Amino acid sequence: MSGLALLDYASVLVFALTGALVASRAQLDLVGFAFIACLTAVGGGTVRDLLLDRHPVFWVGQPDYILIACGAAVLVFFTAHLVESRYNWLVWLDSFALSIAVAAGTGAALSLGQTGVIVVLMGVTTGCLGGLMRDVVCNEVPLVLKQGQLYVSCAFAGALTAVLAAQLGLTGLPALGLCALVCWSLRAGSLLFGWQLPVYKARPPRQ
Amino acid sequence: MSGLALLDYASVLVFALTGALVASRAQLDLVGFAFIACLTAVGGGTVRDLLLDRHPVFWVGQPDYILIACGAAVLVFFTAHLVESRYNWLVWLDSFALSIAVAAGTGAALSLGQTGVIVVLMGVTTGCLGGLMRDVVCNEVPLVLKQGQLYVSCAFAGALTAVLAAQLGLTGLPALGLCALVCWSLRAGSLLFGWQLPVYKARPPRQ
Amino acid sequence: MSGLALLDYASVLVFALTGALVASRAQLDLVGFAFIACLTAVGGGTVRDLLLDRHPVFWVGQPDYILIACGAAVLVFFTAHLVESRYNWLVWLDSFALSIAVAAGTGAALSLGQTGVIVVLMGVTTGCLGGLMRDVVCNEVPLVLKQGQLYVSCAFAGALTAVLAAQLGLTGLPALGLCALVCWSLRAGSLLFGWQLPVYKARPPRQ
Repeated sequence: MSGLALLDYASVLVFALTGALVASRAQLDLVGFAFIACLTAVGGGTVRDLLLDRHPVFWVGQPDYILIACGAAVLVFFTAHLVESRYNWLVWLDSFALSIAVAAGTGAALSLGQTGVIVVLMGVTTGCLGGLMRDVVCNEVPLVLKQGQLYVSCAFAGALTAVLAAQLGLTGLPALGLCALVCWSLRAGSLLFGWQLPVYKARPPRQ
Repeated sequence: MSGLALLDYASVLVFALTGALVASRAQLDLVGFAFIACLTAVGGGTVRDLLLDRHPVFWVGQPDYILIACGAAVLVFFTAHLVESRYNWLVWLDSFALSIAVAAGTGAALSLGQTGVIVVLMGVTTGCLGGLMRDVVCNEVPLVLKQGQLYVSCAFAGALTAVLAAQLGLTGLPALGLCALVCWSLRAGSLLFGWQLPVYKARPPRQ
Repeated sequence: MSGLALLDYASVLVFALTGALVASRAQLDLVGFAFIACLTAVGGGTVRDLLLDRHPVFWVGQPDYILIACGAAVLVFFTAHLVESRYNWLVWLDSFALSIAVAAGTGAALSLGQTGVIVVLMGVTTGCLGGLMRDVVCNEVPLVLKQGQLYVSCAFAGALTAVLAAQLGLTGLPALGLCALVCWSLRAGSLLFGWQLPVYKARPPRQ
């Protein structure tokens, strides 16, 4: 199995776990768990493939992805009550899924010889859109929009790292691993230590 | 006209009626009715066609679909005040649209020779995504997420029926009719008799 | 540069400004501004290109669009506090972006020789879907759904104008300029003078 496919598998698995956790917060049944898990797991990569006109879309050509996502949904359905804080699990699993998916999206765009801007954008798209669909459909506040947290920025920094590494001659799994590491470190730092970028604040109205 | 096109026409018509009913709840004007009706009517099938790289997308090649959806919007705009409970009409019409669209999506994927997993998924996608877009855009609680009701499960069971029927040599409209019937019966049973699958319940916190 | 590309550039720029203004209302950081600006700026045109199977998608083939959208995000991030009413700016900039995008979408479909129905629909799609994505993701009430305002109707009238003009032999930038003018005049009239179409009102319950 190629390194890129491995990244896709890993991101599908971890994103599916986060989707199923959100489904548990919405108290759905098992099929609802599988539906949200699949949407989250393949959402970002599907948009990437459609935008780049890569056919068949990764999971259409290889249905294993769907089976993995459904397996993750079943696992969460029967074990989620064992964990103390489902929201903490959700946020941390999402940080891993984000990092892996950014690497997968970046790698796919690099392998198609896209320009740097598009590679970065495909990394951000693959990383952020699955989780965004999950949150919009399930009416959670999108993690993308949480104030005072790094999220899209982590995806952006990770994807940029892979592009710069490629410029310096570093490609393949090492470069994509570095990309995922940068993305995850920033996200973890934001969650643990409150790292953030300055946010926009409206000036108070004049007196 | 092929049986598949007939199913697409029927699902477009009935989904458009549900879209227009939701537009009436949002008190839009006639053009707003047509917009939501079209989005609902062609949303699921459009995603299916994009995922399967079927071009032209069914309604781009055959604009009759759009005219039918607009006709449904006009009809609802001028007659919706005659019905007692628009929400009941919405839910029941949606159950018919769901069943027909699942059959249409399943049939399209079968006719392209897709594997069983993808066929089932295309049935669920075609059936559920139009209504999901309608509800997300209009800020209704998605029917997909209503607790204690079968929805995605009905689509899943219907699509699975068509795949099993195909394995047993039953294809064409009879198989798709059976698919729609299974889907609708489950949905109707859920609405009338409260049929449901066990939902996830968080264990109460330990004392 | 072709006239069509010019329209795409202009609509990307102005839609990006509206996206960044919405990001300022959500108090995001600079990368969040860029993310929402890009989503809004290229959302409608991307859906148009995917539906019409135009590859590469306009901004994938020409990353300048993304840089323009990011530039708009930076500009708004550092200057939005200077304006008195960001919501007014948002609504009026959106009216310009809508009009230009409708012309761009209509022109693209006309240049592909699509039928009248599809041309009108591509105009509406290109004009309305970027803003709709922006509002759904950022949890604003979609402008599309604002009661008692013309919005989709303006896009519809503008696109229809271009189709009729093409029938009468008027094509190219003059026809698209007329399309944008009709769309914007109706929207401005709706904002300034309360122009509207009759909306659906449920009859009061019988006594």
